[in-house]
Amino acid sequence: MRKQEDFSEWYNEIVELANLTDKRYPIKGMNVWTPYGWKIMRFIDTYIREECDATGHDEVCFPLLIPETEFKKEKDHIKGFDAEVYWVTHAGLNELDVRLLLRPTSETAMYPIFALWVRSHTDLPLKTYQLVNTFRYETKQTRAFIRVREIHFFESHTCHVDEEDAQRQVEEDFVILENIMKHLCLPYFLLRRTEWDKFPGAYYTVGVDTLLPDGRSLQLGSIHHYRENFSRPFNITYEDEKGEHKFAHQTTFGMSERLVGAVVAVHGDDKGLVLPPDISPFQVVIIPILAKGNVEKVAEECQKLRQELTAAGLRVKLDDSDERPGSKFHNWEIRGVPLRLEMGMRDIEGGKVAYARRDTGAKGSLDRSNIVPQVREKLDQISADMRAKALAASNDAIQDLDSLDKVPEKVVRFGWCGEEECGRKFEERTGLKMLGSPYNKEEYHGRCIVCGKPVEKPTYAARSM
Amino acid sequence: MRKQEDFSEWYNEIVELANLTDKRYPIKGMNVWTPYGWKIMRFIDTYIREECDATGHDEVCFPLLIPETEFKKEKDHIKGFDAEVYWVTHAGLNELDVRLLLRPTSETAMYPIFALWVRSHTDLPLKTYQLVNTFRYETKQTRAFIRVREIHFFESHTCHVDEEDAQRQVEEDFVILENIMKHLCLPYFLLRRTEWDKFPGAYYTVGVDTLLPDGRSLQLGSIHHYRENFSRPFNITYEDEKGEHKFAHQTTFGMSERLVGAVVAVHGDDKGLVLPPDISPFQVVIIPILAKGNVEKVAEECQKLRQELTAAGLRVKLDDSDERPGSKFHNWEIRGVPLRLEMGMRDIEGGKVAYARRDTGAKGSLDRSNIVPQVREKLDQISADMRAKALAASNDAIQDLDSLDKVPEKVVRFGWCGEEECGRKFEERTGLKMLGSPYNKEEYHGRCIVCGKPVEKPTYAARSM
Repeated sequence: MRKQEDFSEWYNEIVELANLTDKRYPIKGMNVWTPYGWKIMRFIDTYIREECDATGHDEVCFPLLIPETEFKKEKDHIKGFDAEVYWVTHAGLNELDVRLLLRPTSETAMYPIFALWVRSHTDLPLKTYQLVNTFRYETKQTRAFIRVREIHFFESHTCHVDEEDAQRQVEEDFVILENIMKHLCLPYFLLRRTEWDKFPGAYYTVGVDTLLPDGRSLQLGSIHHYRENFSRPFNITYEDEKGEHKFAHQTTFGMSERLVGAVVAVHGDDKGLVLPPDISPFQVVIIPILAKGNVEKVAEECQKLRQELTAAGLRVKLDDSDERPGSKFHNWEIRGVPLRLEMGMRDIEGGKVAYARRDTGAKGSLDRSNIVPQVREKLDQISADMRAKALAASNDAIQDLDSLDKVPEKVVRFGWCGEEECGRKFEERTGLKMLGSPYNKEEYHGRCIVCGKPVEKPTYAARSM
Repeated sequence: MRKQEDFSEWYNEIVELANLTDKRYPIKGMNVWTPYGWKIMRFIDTYIREECDATGHDEVCFPLLIPETEFKKEKDHIKGFDAEVYWVTHAGLNELDVRLLLRPTSETAMYPIFALWVRSHTDLPLKTYQLVNTFRYETKQTRAFIRVREIHFFESHTCHVDEEDAQRQVEEDFVILENIMKHLCLPYFLLRRTEWDKFPGAYYTVGVDTLLPDGRSLQLGSIHHYRENFSRPFNITYEDEKGEHKFAHQTTFGMSERLVGAVVAVHGDDKGLVLPPDISPFQVVIIPILAKGNVEKVAEECQKLRQELTAAGLRVKLDDSDERPGSKFHNWEIRGVPLRLEMGMRDIEGGKVAYARRDTGAKGSLDRSNIVPQVREKLDQISADMRAKALAASNDAIQDLDSLDKVPEKVVRFGWCGEEECGRKFEERTGLKMLGSPYNKEEYHGRCIVCGKPVEKPTYAARSM
C-alpha cells in the first residue's frame, strides 16, 4: 500500500480495506454503499442540507425518469449526454410510446415544472435543491466514488429575475461550497472552464477541482450560469412589475460522491483512511489495554469514558472485542478514525488517558478529569492541521510553465491568450486538459504559451481523472 | 370539499390545495415532491432512521438497477412482479446484453451481496435497511402517495441463524412500527395475509393496514418472514459453531410514502390537512393581529414570540405577509399546522396569547409568560387527541358479519375456517378482499361464514384501495 508509488492501486486497496463500498455488485460501476461508507456520505449530505437550508433553498425531490421529448428540448444538452444515458423502453409487458431516460442530471426533469411554478417576479428567486442518485453510462474505466455509473448527487437549481441576480447566486454558491469543503478539509480551485469544455447548455461553467497525489486533477463539482439558455426552450417566464413577460435566468450547482473519493485520495496514507473529524462515523475509538487481574476495572473505566464522551455529543466507538490491542490499532487506522484513546491500569492510576492522532501519528496523554474539552481541542487541531497540510500539498504541486518543451505530468500554471486555437494547440501538444482560469482574480503577468501574446491571468491544466 | 360525501375527490383536492405534491410531471404517476410535502416525508424518514438505528440496523444503499438474471432467481418473486417492472434495455447508443430492471423492491439487488457478507454465524444477525425510491408500473388509476409509479420506500432486510431468530426480528419490527405510528397518530391492524395474498416468495406476510374514511383498507406496509425461500436460490449460507453450513433465515419490513397519504386521509377534514405535530413542517403558526397605531409594537412582540418558541426547538412560522388575518387562518388551516397563535394589542396588554387548535377548532388563550411549556403541552394534547380520535373511528368502522346476505361496503370481521376454498368463495360472493387474521390474539368465538366450522379467531376483509 504505497500511496506515492502507485496511487491508483493504493486508492483501490484502501477503499476495499476500509470497506467503504462493495464493488462486487453484478453491474460494473454500480457499487453498494456499505454502512461505513454511507455514514460518511450522509454526514456530507447533512452539511450540504445545512448550508442550503440556511441560504433559503427548498429541498425537493423530482422523478428519476425523464421523457425523451423533454430531454430533447435543449439541443446542446442532449448532445452532451446522448452517449451516456440509460433508456427505459419497456414497462411490464408493454413497449413504451415515449422512451424514458434515467436522469444524468435534472435540468430537463425540473424545468417543465419550474415553468408552472414561476409566474410572477414575486415567485423569484426560486431556490431549490435535491439529493438524489443520477446515472451515466461511463465507458471509461470505473473507479469507486470517482467514476461510477450510479452517482449519489447534490444539485441546486435556481431561477432569477435577471443575469445579475443569477450572478449573485453563483457567488452565494461559492460561500456554500467553502463551508462544506471546510468540513472535508479539502483544498480546491475555482476555475472557469473553457468554452469547449463548459456544461452542455451553460452560459459559463466554474469547475471545482482538487488535486490528486499523482498530480492529476479531479472535478468535484461545478457551478453554472445558464442565462436564458434553458428558460427559453422550457418557457420559464415571469411577469415583472410592469406587467412584461420575461425569461428567467438560471443557475445550478452540483457535487457528487466524488467528495468521498477526494477525502480518501487527499488525506489517506499508507496505513489507510484518514478521515476529517466532521465526517468520520467515529471521531474517537477507545481501546482498553487489559492485563491479568485488572480486566474488569479497565473495562468499567473504558465504559465510563465512552459514556462521558458520547453524552457530550461526540461519536465514539469502544472496541471491546477479543482482539489484541495492536490488531485493533491497525484496524481503526485503516478506517481512519481521527483520534485513538487507550486506557490501561497505569493510565487509570495516574489519572491519564493515552492518545494517538491518526493524521500525524503524534502520541501523548490527556488528563482523565475534564476529558471532553481536551478531546474536542484535539479534534479541532486535527481538522485544522489536515486542512493546512492538504492546502500546502496542493499549492506545492502546481508548476509554472513557460514553454511547451518539457511539460511535466502534473498540474501546470501558464499563460493563455484565451483563443480557442491556442488552447486546442496546448492540449494537443501536452496531452493535458485545460481546466480554465481562476474565477477569482489571481496576480499574474505572463505571455500566452502558444502565441506569445501578453496575458494578465493564469490558466491551469492537468491530466484529469 | 366534503370528506364524508366524496372521499376520493376530497383527497385529491386537499393534496393539491395543501401543495403536498405536484402531479403535473409529464409522466403519469410520477409526481414531484414539493418542499412542503417532502419536509413531511423527511420527518417520517427521520423517525424510521431513529428506530432502525436504535435497534442495531445499519443503513445501506444498494444500486437501483437489477440484472434480469438475478431477478429471475426466485420463481414466485418474478411471477409476482413480472407485469409491473420498468426495463432498461439500452445505454448510450448500445443495446444491453442483459436487461436491467428498476427495483420494485430490493431482495434481488441485495441478496447476491448478502451471500458474500454472510460467512459465519458471527456475521449474524445481519440487520440492514435503506430509504430509496422504488418503481412499479401501476396499471390501476394512480393517486398521490397511495398509488404511484415512483415510490419513496423504506425497506429493512435481515438475515438470521434460524427461523426462531428471524421470528424475533418480526416481533422487533412490530415495536419499530408502533413507535413510528405513534408519531403519525395512525391506528393500524396487523393482519396475517392469506396464502394466496402473501408477498411473492414469502413464508408468511403480515400486512399493516389502516382504514380510510370511506371504509376501504389501505396497506401501509408489510413484514415478511422468508424462512429460507430466498437464501436458497441466492445461496446465503453461514458456518455454524460446529462448522456446518446452513442457510440463513430472512425477514423484511417495508413501508412507503403511503404513510403520508394515510395522514392526509385519516386526519384531514373539510378545511384541509390536519398534521400530527411530530411531522408538521411548522408546529405553530403565529398570526399578528394588527390595527392602526399598533403595527410596529405587535410585529415586534410577534417576532419575540417566534424567537422564544424557535429557541426552544419548536418549528414556528410567523406569517407577517400583507394578507388579512382571516385569509391567513384559512391558508394555514389548509396546510394543517397544528396550533395557531394570534397576538394583537389587547393580548399583549393582557399578557395573553390567543390560540386555536387545528384538530378540534378549540380556542382559548395562554399566558404570554412561560409560553413554551404551555405550547408544548397543547401540542402533546393535540397528538394524544388525534391518536384517540383516529383509533375510535377505526374501531367504530368495523362491522361484525355473520352471514353473507347483506354485506356492507365496509371493513368487516367474521369467522373463516382458514381453508382457501371458503376464503375464495367469500371474496367472490362479497367483492371484498380478505385482509387476514390478526397477528396478535384477539378474543373471538364464531363460525366460518362459508362452511360453518367453529373458529377461534376472526378474519378481516374490506374493499381495498
